[in-house]
Amino acid sequence: MSAAAKPRLVMKFGGTSVAGVERIRNVAALVKREVENGYDVAVVVSAMSGETNKLVALTREMSPLHDAREYDAIASSGENVTAGLTAIALDTIGVPARSWAGWQIPIKTDGVHGSASILDIDPKGIEDRFAQGTMAVVAGFQGISPEGRITTLGRGGSDTSAVALAAALKAERCDIYTDVDGVYTTDPRIVEKARKLDKISYEEMLEMASLGAKVLQTRSVEMAMIHRVKTQVLSSFDGQVGADLPGTLVCDEDEIMEKRLVSGIAYSRDEAKITLVKVPDRPGVAAAIFSPLADAGINVDMIVQNVSDDGKTTDMTFTTGKADFERALKVLEDNLHDIRHERVSTDTNVVKVSVIGVGMRTHAGVAQTMFKTLAEKGINIQVISTSEIKVSVLIAAEYTELAVRALHTAYGLDGP
Amino acid sequence: MSAAAKPRLVMKFGGTSVAGVERIRNVAALVKREVENGYDVAVVVSAMSGETNKLVALTREMSPLHDAREYDAIASSGENVTAGLTAIALDTIGVPARSWAGWQIPIKTDGVHGSASILDIDPKGIEDRFAQGTMAVVAGFQGISPEGRITTLGRGGSDTSAVALAAALKAERCDIYTDVDGVYTTDPRIVEKARKLDKISYEEMLEMASLGAKVLQTRSVEMAMIHRVKTQVLSSFDGQVGADLPGTLVCDEDEIMEKRLVSGIAYSRDEAKITLVKVPDRPGVAAAIFSPLADAGINVDMIVQNVSDDGKTTDMTFTTGKADFERALKVLEDNLHDIRHERVSTDTNVVKVSVIGVGMRTHAGVAQTMFKTLAEKGINIQVISTSEIKVSVLIAAEYTELAVRALHTAYGLDGP
Repeated sequence: MSAAAKPRLVMKFGGTSVAGVERIRNVAALVKREVENGYDVAVVVSAMSGETNKLVALTREMSPLHDAREYDAIASSGENVTAGLTAIALDTIGVPARSWAGWQIPIKTDGVHGSASILDIDPKGIEDRFAQGTMAVVAGFQGISPEGRITTLGRGGSDTSAVALAAALKAERCDIYTDVDGVYTTDPRIVEKARKLDKISYEEMLEMASLGAKVLQTRSVEMAMIHRVKTQVLSSFDGQVGADLPGTLVCDEDEIMEKRLVSGIAYSRDEAKITLVKVPDRPGVAAAIFSPLADAGINVDMIVQNVSDDGKTTDMTFTTGKADFERALKVLEDNLHDIRHERVSTDTNVVKVSVIGVGMRTHAGVAQTMFKTLAEKGINIQVISTSEIKVSVLIAAEYTELAVRALHTAYGLDGP
Repeated sequence: MSAAAKPRLVMKFGGTSVAGVERIRNVAALVKREVENGYDVAVVVSAMSGETNKLVALTREMSPLHDAREYDAIASSGENVTAGLTAIALDTIGVPARSWAGWQIPIKTDGVHGSASILDIDPKGIEDRFAQGTMAVVAGFQGISPEGRITTLGRGGSDTSAVALAAALKAERCDIYTDVDGVYTTDPRIVEKARKLDKISYEEMLEMASLGAKVLQTRSVEMAMIHRVKTQVLSSFDGQVGADLPGTLVCDEDEIMEKRLVSGIAYSRDEAKITLVKVPDRPGVAAAIFSPLADAGINVDMIVQNVSDDGKTTDMTFTTGKADFERALKVLEDNLHDIRHERVSTDTNVVKVSVIGVGMRTHAGVAQTMFKTLAEKGINIQVISTSEIKVSVLIAAEYTELAVRALHTAYGLDGP
């Protein structure tokens, strides 16, 4: 115990990276290289790809209205399998390792089954084993509630497990191994010249994640930002390990030398537009519309209110996720008797395109460039919303690729 | 809490009984009927049939020499799935239930991973929930070691979980639901007239189980005997529940009214015979032969020693399980340099046939009937061994069916 503690690393592997014995052996080989690089490593693993879906389908088939505590007991089991197999794979190549279920560490969460939040992780057990030379393999996605029941962190929750564990272990870095090699300036399937970013700030990544660039779970980015955990996204299939920084590092804004106005163009097809035509333009109308939606747990994203010609009525437009769309219409129908709007018009054939960059905080003109670029391509903007580091517009879905490509070029993001 | 505690029942369902959503719904329906019969019920479930085999195969593929603690973490996960699904199925039909993993109860075991023994079960958590009207669904096959690691009880261990839980809960009975409707006087695939036994004593069941009538795991019968847990074997597919006593009750000898000389004819094909021909007939020879086998963990079953004609040498014959056969030969080869036997002769084409019955304790002539019956059919007996309630003979495998049928008739076991 006299030796100084080694630097620590958390390495997280997603479902495709652990889908089968051979892939888990590949994971073990990557972990071994970091151990040889001098790190104490905690590995966080997802279930084999498809496994959790299979378990969730069984649960739904048994009853659509199942107890969320039982859902968690069932859905968490795939991670126990991959954690055990990964520990065996490490042992086999001479890296002593043991698996940890969430409750064994423990990873304490609140009692919100199905999408629990991590409250606290006690790193002592893992640290004691590090001191004995034993690496940790942790089942991702799971924790234990105050009542001693198994909880899960929601889909993609293993990313959150990994970042939280990195914070608790004061790890040098949290490397998220996945099936893509980093975060791109935009979707490479749409823009051939999309470039991989070496670094991206937490804030930008958060906008990217929440806008549908599904590389990292949004909550894991929030947690990385709060605890300032350097988090790298990289591929488990190209043979490189995190120490070489081959992926995209999600880090503090200050650590990014190359300052960019815009870091990326994101888009989300998961949008539905609802317009209440000619609602009376009087105080309390917005509350009357949006309170019932909030009560029903429906997340409303973009909202615009246009004053109409007569000055007495207004059109109220907003967007929801496609999954909430039908339910939102039902809630409106049940609650809008008193509002006396003319009619409801809807459109699910829309897409939200966003330009994201911390640079726009200090530079004007980012939004104007966006509007001008889209106008030049003849693309009509239906709704606009902005935040400190993001401008989003809602456009017709058929223009998605055209808009993303044009904006990628306009902001100088095209690679060589 | 003022109401008197209800009588309790443990209902255990094997892998075929929980193989899929529909079958689990059937299980829930059976449990509901016992709840309506006035019982507090603890349900013990196995993994879906095939699941544990799949997990074990993955573990072996990863490494034949895997850490047994990781094996247990992996192999135990199938039971968590069925326990959760069963709890949901019960909730859905109006029977409040929650699932329990072994560590949650806890079911405390020793640290012999892969075949752990149950040391203690704390029934308080389940009892508290019973008092609130919530039934228990317990993941079978698993427990927790003194070090806080998950243990498994060995294949078929869910039977042991169920019996141990019945003892801890002081249950009125432990009903083991399986894909057969009880314990038969012999294998019905061989003897059409085999009869289902209404009752069988613990001691007889123990001999039946250890001889290959694989209805109940041997260790579960031992535990039932030690704790005097009334245990019923019955089918989950014929629509009857335990209260009607449709299966076979394994119970104390005193509770069996109908006294029989012989309760059943068992056979085991898992036998291999080894003969050391012409070993010197002097003190210490048996020890020299069997000590190395014992050291190697090889279980030797039947042993006979014949004095040969010259009075100076003897033939030593014994049997092992087929799985140990090759290894036993290797151990002998490595250790018998000094014995100077003439040669080793082997035969794996043998079967052990046994007649079992507590009645033979007080009645002579049971063995004679056996020998006479086999002689009449021209079947040569190679080895004989006896215990207080059992006579076993080793014969050539080709006579298996003939011998079992003849003995079944000779002891008056043929049904109508």
